[in-house]
Amino acid sequence: MTAALASEYQRIRHTSAAICAPLARDDYQLQSIVETSPPKWHLGHVTWFFETFLLQAFVKNYQPFRAEYNYLFNSYYQTVGSMQPRAERGLMSRPTVEEVYAYRAAIDERMADLLTHADPSQAQAIAARVTLGLHHEQQHQELLYMDIKHNFWRNPLRPIYLPKTLPVREATSLTWETRAGGLLESGFEGDSFAYDNERPQHKVWLEPHRLASRLSTNGEYLAFIEDGGYQRAELWLADGWYHRKQHGWQTPLYWEQRDGQWYEFTLHGFEPLDLAAPVAHTSYYEADAFARWSGNRLPLEAELEHKLRELPITGHFTNSNTFHPQAGTEQHYGSLWEWTASPYTAYPRFQPLEGSMGEYNGKFMCNQWVLRGGACITPADHIRPTYRNFFYPHDRWQFSGIRLAEDV
Amino acid sequence: MTAALASEYQRIRHTSAAICAPLARDDYQLQSIVETSPPKWHLGHVTWFFETFLLQAFVKNYQPFRAEYNYLFNSYYQTVGSMQPRAERGLMSRPTVEEVYAYRAAIDERMADLLTHADPSQAQAIAARVTLGLHHEQQHQELLYMDIKHNFWRNPLRPIYLPKTLPVREATSLTWETRAGGLLESGFEGDSFAYDNERPQHKVWLEPHRLASRLSTNGEYLAFIEDGGYQRAELWLADGWYHRKQHGWQTPLYWEQRDGQWYEFTLHGFEPLDLAAPVAHTSYYEADAFARWSGNRLPLEAELEHKLRELPITGHFTNSNTFHPQAGTEQHYGSLWEWTASPYTAYPRFQPLEGSMGEYNGKFMCNQWVLRGGACITPADHIRPTYRNFFYPHDRWQFSGIRLAEDV
Amino acid sequence: MTAALASEYQRIRHTSAAICAPLARDDYQLQSIVETSPPKWHLGHVTWFFETFLLQAFVKNYQPFRAEYNYLFNSYYQTVGSMQPRAERGLMSRPTVEEVYAYRAAIDERMADLLTHADPSQAQAIAARVTLGLHHEQQHQELLYMDIKHNFWRNPLRPIYLPKTLPVREATSLTWETRAGGLLESGFEGDSFAYDNERPQHKVWLEPHRLASRLSTNGEYLAFIEDGGYQRAELWLADGWYHRKQHGWQTPLYWEQRDGQWYEFTLHGFEPLDLAAPVAHTSYYEADAFARWSGNRLPLEAELEHKLRELPITGHFTNSNTFHPQAGTEQHYGSLWEWTASPYTAYPRFQPLEGSMGEYNGKFMCNQWVLRGGACITPADHIRPTYRNFFYPHDRWQFSGIRLAEDV
Amino acid sequence: MTAALASEYQRIRHTSAAICAPLARDDYQLQSIVETSPPKWHLGHVTWFFETFLLQAFVKNYQPFRAEYNYLFNSYYQTVGSMQPRAERGLMSRPTVEEVYAYRAAIDERMADLLTHADPSQAQAIAARVTLGLHHEQQHQELLYMDIKHNFWRNPLRPIYLPKTLPVREATSLTWETRAGGLLESGFEGDSFAYDNERPQHKVWLEPHRLASRLSTNGEYLAFIEDGGYQRAELWLADGWYHRKQHGWQTPLYWEQRDGQWYEFTLHGFEPLDLAAPVAHTSYYEADAFARWSGNRLPLEAELEHKLRELPITGHFTNSNTFHPQAGTEQHYGSLWEWTASPYTAYPRFQPLEGSMGEYNGKFMCNQWVLRGGACITPADHIRPTYRNFFYPHDRWQFSGIRLAEDV
Ligand SMILES: [Fe+3]
Ligand SMILES: [Fe+3]
Ligand SMILES: [Fe+3]
Ligand SMILES: [Fe+3]
Repeated sequence: MTAALASEYQRIRHTSAAICAPLARDDYQLQSIVETSPPKWHLGHVTWFFETFLLQAFVKNYQPFRAEYNYLFNSYYQTVGSMQPRAERGLMSRPTVEEVYAYRAAIDERMADLLTHADPSQAQAIAARVTLGLHHEQQHQELLYMDIKHNFWRNPLRPIYLPKTLPVREATSLTWETRAGGLLESGFEGDSFAYDNERPQHKVWLEPHRLASRLSTNGEYLAFIEDGGYQRAELWLADGWYHRKQHGWQTPLYWEQRDGQWYEFTLHGFEPLDLAAPVAHTSYYEADAFARWSGNRLPLEAELEHKLRELPITGHFTNSNTFHPQAGTEQHYGSLWEWTASPYTAYPRFQPLEGSMGEYNGKFMCNQWVLRGGACITPADHIRPTYRNFFYPHDRWQFSGIRLAEDV
Repeated sequence: MTAALASEYQRIRHTSAAICAPLARDDYQLQSIVETSPPKWHLGHVTWFFETFLLQAFVKNYQPFRAEYNYLFNSYYQTVGSMQPRAERGLMSRPTVEEVYAYRAAIDERMADLLTHADPSQAQAIAARVTLGLHHEQQHQELLYMDIKHNFWRNPLRPIYLPKTLPVREATSLTWETRAGGLLESGFEGDSFAYDNERPQHKVWLEPHRLASRLSTNGEYLAFIEDGGYQRAELWLADGWYHRKQHGWQTPLYWEQRDGQWYEFTLHGFEPLDLAAPVAHTSYYEADAFARWSGNRLPLEAELEHKLRELPITGHFTNSNTFHPQAGTEQHYGSLWEWTASPYTAYPRFQPLEGSMGEYNGKFMCNQWVLRGGACITPADHIRPTYRNFFYPHDRWQFSGIRLAEDV
Repeated sequence: MTAALASEYQRIRHTSAAICAPLARDDYQLQSIVETSPPKWHLGHVTWFFETFLLQAFVKNYQPFRAEYNYLFNSYYQTVGSMQPRAERGLMSRPTVEEVYAYRAAIDERMADLLTHADPSQAQAIAARVTLGLHHEQQHQELLYMDIKHNFWRNPLRPIYLPKTLPVREATSLTWETRAGGLLESGFEGDSFAYDNERPQHKVWLEPHRLASRLSTNGEYLAFIEDGGYQRAELWLADGWYHRKQHGWQTPLYWEQRDGQWYEFTLHGFEPLDLAAPVAHTSYYEADAFARWSGNRLPLEAELEHKLRELPITGHFTNSNTFHPQAGTEQHYGSLWEWTASPYTAYPRFQPLEGSMGEYNGKFMCNQWVLRGGACITPADHIRPTYRNFFYPHDRWQFSGIRLAEDV
Repeated sequence: MTAALASEYQRIRHTSAAICAPLARDDYQLQSIVETSPPKWHLGHVTWFFETFLLQAFVKNYQPFRAEYNYLFNSYYQTVGSMQPRAERGLMSRPTVEEVYAYRAAIDERMADLLTHADPSQAQAIAARVTLGLHHEQQHQELLYMDIKHNFWRNPLRPIYLPKTLPVREATSLTWETRAGGLLESGFEGDSFAYDNERPQHKVWLEPHRLASRLSTNGEYLAFIEDGGYQRAELWLADGWYHRKQHGWQTPLYWEQRDGQWYEFTLHGFEPLDLAAPVAHTSYYEADAFARWSGNRLPLEAELEHKLRELPITGHFTNSNTFHPQAGTEQHYGSLWEWTASPYTAYPRFQPLEGSMGEYNGKFMCNQWVLRGGACITPADHIRPTYRNFFYPHDRWQFSGIRLAEDV
């Protein structure tokens, strides 16, 4: 096994703990809505992933750290056994935070052992699986930011994750790039890591179209609100309108008006709304209605992918230590995940991974929409042009944003 | 206005009443689940469509037949005003059945007048709208069959819509046709009628693939059940598995086992299950799981469309007066709507119709899947190769079937 | 068997049909909320009661009219077999109205036969059971009025059950009668008919108290509303406040404000609110909050019973053919059922009837409150001083009213 | 102010913290069902009670410890302001456990100051309110035991609150005491502390009856189960039967069968079921069905009160440090709260306390049933013969037991 992989393992595993460092012990336990998970659970689950799919799979006569953890920390792998119901992850006071960190330490030690002494005949298979495990852990790092934010939001004391004064910048002006389309390749091809849902590379026909140069701003979204956007059914998808009414949506998640002034809850505090910054935390329904109101549409995932292929992977990622999108930044990569007009489905000839790993992505290909490009809570080395993120059209707690597109 | 259109109007309007002829007065009122509507409501709603979008739109100083009907019989046109909640259509004991038929007669008379005396400058617009209204009414004729079937199913007395002995035929053997794919045109182009969601015609790339020669049968589906299909999570989409468990699904809708013998509820009675006949009334979730179990997949909508374009529009439709699919018939058109692996979304450059008519199709382009080809409850002249039907992945009361496909 | 009983049977059975005479066929089917039942079901259920508990019980080798009716028309007698779920009574389009009337006619004929030719050794048992069946049918006659009213209310066309101009009278002034209390007898004793829940007679201690001379009026209740009664939590029981908020109550059921004028929906039409008439259709929660706001309390059931024992059984009942309470009438009997501050529980040494008849009353002795005195929809010969009606504290569709009481 | 009261204050306040001593930090946060509250919340709420109703009320220009706590720690006092929704108490990760203990310390200091330096003119009012606050805190001590038990139960690791081997004793034989009844006094009279709902003392008539000499045992309850008690609708109240089916009850809460052996979850571990020990954690519905199956009934609250009046207040309380009921103990006081057949309603001439304190008890007098006598989690000095505890008929997480009664 290469030392590089072992070092990468240490680095990424360490990052998960570092993300939780600002938390009080009490914060580790919360599950504010069924979609979020307690930080403690995330820390245990990603560890369970290594124990189950590396140690159990590749170590002879492996003895589990603690047998019950297979039930507690299994997320959704039906082929691995039954699991704590998702809605009840917040009920796990035990194992304690200390015990979960002890679990992490023990598994890290065993993993170090595996990485050092693996049978050469298995080295490649192990390396591939470890790489998957590390990407998996990075996904949960994103979830940690998202979930911590939501947990804090539900607390009337509005705790601050990382006190920080955000810079105020001007928004760049929105321009349109015309793109030719044609019969193009989409999806991942190559030897480096990509999820199964990015494969195989395949042909797709794109019509000529235009892409906006930056994300839509809070100011632009506020104009939609003030123009009655949340009251005009004709702007909305039928399911979106129903959802909006049922949940009383009047703004994106995390907005709040006090004494005529708009505020936004961020991981850096409850701040006056920055009109120049990208609008964040809208559902697909809201993004779609906003685009219709704007006289535009949302881009297809292949349209965005082809733009991303042309660009260096730079932007506003977690290494900025700023966990809220900013005006005036390059926004194709990072900043906010961009809603696309593409439902999340299988590419032609899609093959899920073998065995339990096949449950990772394929079984979610229904009722969700693709988002592209990463966000300010994405690790910089976790994104690719072909990366497909996906959420339900009503989800809002993820760091989602809106890039407009239009037909030529 | 052409006499042909007036005659077509009379023919199609008459058919709706004919479909309801076997009903008892009591049957007109039922809404067995929120998805179905009472026959009485269908009869009123399609009439309201003509009154609202033809008479109101084209007759000067038009006086509504009865003002409250705009509330009662509006289905989902937010731009036309508020409406009786969908879930409460079954609470309308008034207007009575007699009053609804009187409403139909009155509007038919006014429509005859409009068709005869329309201002020539408006003739074309009126003809286009009437044609839309007639296609709309034909859609509701399908719904009448579907809804009556479900209403009757919920009644422990199991009423029979049309007593009839169904022929027992052998199933043809399943063969596979290899199809080349390539860069093809999809969608409707031309002057004859098509819904906005079938337009515009556009290019789509298809990989080489194979299509099954006939629909999957009850016998084949029973093998899936007996192989534990409803108990094996790994065969299912995550949302489908959740739904299956929550609703306790163990078979398609309308199947029932008594004393070890399988039965199926049909519009012609509660009959022993015909193993050679196409399996009907599965959800997308079940169709998808069955296809995975079979080692195949469901076809894309463009794959089916290209097959349909090659064939004459013949098959098992309502003119057969048999409202249940049969073995041994041509099944590309008619018989059962075929689930596709394509979410229902907008074609490139899709433009909804102007005004309220834009609410007809576009706003449903989220969370639903396309079905193709028509069914035995479809009027023979209501189907086209480009016709896109759509339902939620959990819906089962529509006449849906399964055609397998696979990659080459 | 006495001819008197046979004649009574005919009279009461006929009354049920007469109550339904103003209905359209379409009205027979409706179940507007889970608490109500379709008129057609009531007509069938009371008939099933005679078939099951008289014909099945006392006729040798009795052949049921139709076996499935035992499932369809059983209300809640677990000992008699399974039953159509209560919430799905509105889904019975079959049997049709005609078939239900045919069922009634057939059972009436068989009952006539039983009453004429009963074995003398069984005559007394049969007479007792028939008497119970007739009181049962009278209870359902009340339910018919209540349920028809609610069904009509949910229809935007607001049908009128019986067109009639209600007289406008002055309210009598409210005076207080001081009553001594002491160690008194409560409950029924004697040979004539009473339900098991009225027995046995037993001692109860009452403190001195005062009873209001008439029911509280719409005008008085409006003052409560205008004083913020529905916004002041301190006036409400905790469960009531929760319920009020969850359901958005701001007035009694059937009130509606249009252009600043209050209206009330009645079986005689949608009428301007008569401020002098008794307030009707409040829940226990509202009655209790109103009493607290008034500085009074609701009476105990024994307090009302002792007042009722002193009075002749006269008042506003169904023979008035006015199905809405009026000002200026004697209101101890009839007019509106009066909420009491007494939960519905068993009297000391209470014994439910033997067998299935034991399910009639006893199993409901939890979570409900007693109402006393009958209402304008009660048959005049159906009420007694000891009669205990009971509803859940949130129920509002029954004809309930408020009589205030206070401690001395 | 007497030093005795100050010392009592310290003792009882200290006990709350002592109860939480065995908890991990993680355990302080859990709310396993809406009825339970997190231990952290209990500790804050009882402190808020002293801050709000003593310090705010009696200290001039009092500055709140932290203004937001009035929202977070208000339970249900509508007159004091709005509050964190009950179902969301588990979402409070902040204040942290440390902050809550700091809050307790600060308020204790201020309370000590108040108790020492109170204006003599207010001393009596303050003493009365402090006494109420201490009884309030003792109630929450019971809730702490109940809630911790339920929280632990929901965790698959089944944490143990206090490891301890429970003694195994024989059950005493069940005998019946005949009691004469008559016109008796019920309720509290005197100068010492009692809640408003125990007052005023008033007359009540009791029939002669018999009371069981001890609580019903697990063995007796198991016989009920094995006789089909949970499958026989005729034994149950209608609401109870519905609830049982909906929630799938087959045993009391905390029972579990593994490999044919019954176990019970206790605060001392997951133990084999002790057949001689009193059956605990049944709902009213189950207690009532069991009594009916036994051919007996549950006692009235006045029947139990009169028995309790004759006995010294001794029994199995918290000072035993055993938090699970035992066989062979005196059980009239302590051990388990006994369900009565009496709905929780106001005594004649009941007057709630003035102001916000009036919300303490009165507004819950609907839909609940009275339990009597205290339990093994009740502080020995917290119980009286007239003490009325109350729970909803479906509640099971409280330490409830069954004493049978019967008519003579
Ligand atoms: Fe995961
Ligand atoms: Fe329609
Ligand atoms: Fe009945
Ligand atoms: Fe409290």
